[in-house]
Amino acid sequence: MQLYTYFRSSAAYRVRIALNLKGLVAEESYLHLRKGAHLEADYLRLNPQGLLPTLVDDDGVTLSQSLAILEYLDETRPRPPILPADAAARARVRQLAQVVACDIHPINNLKVLNYLTGELGVSEAARTTWYRHWIGQGMAALERLLADSPATGDFCHGDGPTIADICLVPQVYNAQRFDADMSPYPTVMRINGACLALDAFAKAAPDVQPDAE
Amino acid sequence: MQLYTYFRSSAAYRVRIALNLKGLVAEESYLHLRKGAHLEADYLRLNPQGLLPTLVDDDGVTLSQSLAILEYLDETRPRPPILPADAAARARVRQLAQVVACDIHPINNLKVLNYLTGELGVSEAARTTWYRHWIGQGMAALERLLADSPATGDFCHGDGPTIADICLVPQVYNAQRFDADMSPYPTVMRINGACLALDAFAKAAPDVQPDAE
Repeated sequence: MQLYTYFRSSAAYRVRIALNLKGLVAEESYLHLRKGAHLEADYLRLNPQGLLPTLVDDDGVTLSQSLAILEYLDETRPRPPILPADAAARARVRQLAQVVACDIHPINNLKVLNYLTGELGVSEAARTTWYRHWIGQGMAALERLLADSPATGDFCHGDGPTIADICLVPQVYNAQRFDADMSPYPTVMRINGACLALDAFAKAAPDVQPDAE
Repeated sequence: MQLYTYFRSSAAYRVRIALNLKGLVAEESYLHLRKGAHLEADYLRLNPQGLLPTLVDDDGVTLSQSLAILEYLDETRPRPPILPADAAARARVRQLAQVVACDIHPINNLKVLNYLTGELGVSEAARTTWYRHWIGQGMAALERLLADSPATGDFCHGDGPTIADICLVPQVYNAQRFDADMSPYPTVMRINGACLALDAFAKAAPDVQPDAE
């Protein structure tokens, strides 16, 4: 199994956590996003979006989109599961994951930030305000969904990590990198702490990757 | 089953298609996004993000996030399926869906467009350029993923509709509403046509909804 990754890519960080949780080891290829390595022809053949991550399974199956990869890993390597068994619980976990993956992360992606400061001539300060705005809006919703539900446990859903936690932790990492105020989201931060106490999460963190700067 | 919907919400449009494909009828509640109906307290209790759609199942299970709802419908009402059976095929379909749902749609969402013209003071013209830019980038990737794969058939994956088509059609509708040039994406447009020839898609279209203006 081969993983195309970059230490700071949130989406690659998710897949690194999932691989660790399932005890899988992928050979890693490091692409430097800021140097444009993801836009070279060889990589675009694997991933026409030029995004990270890409996972190539042993049989050649080539996948992009981190949420699709997480589901694929759970379907092909089901132990330990990263989704609950019950349909309503699975839906809740996917919903929490998608609050991050569809409503926070894409709007704060590097290509969007570059468009703001490039094509639109937005100042660095306004760019940071933009970043924190979408973090705040998404995290406020996550906090409600987590704090108000009896289904929340030590982790986003019950007492074991799921794809919801796998999305939450990299997003909190990004928020902290941009000095967003996380104090209004105590449940999010409690769960983030519980996750980072696990080796699978700690060893996937950007700062301990071989390509970290 | 109750669906909170708005005729022009792309995410609600996806769920309407899925319900139709599965022959399910939901009681519809219409929220007017531009009038802020989604931000009223009663609705925020159901959906703390204040986004559409929300689906309330007969047993009270309350779900938001359209992709999570699509998966839930497929798990609880499996016939006819909207995901293939094989893990690699499921991953491909989810990947195609997520190119739309994670990398095009969120960046062009109403709340983002409002932030551009409001907080950032971006002109209407620059806002439209922004819109078309992300459509173009995402559609170009979709076109490659569809045109270059032998797994593509009459629809995104094989000869029956899946959640990939369910995401594609509302995005093409949006693109056309903003007069984006779709001529570089013939495979996308061929599949869009095949979908709209089906009642399930045609009857979910924004312009034929009871709350259409």
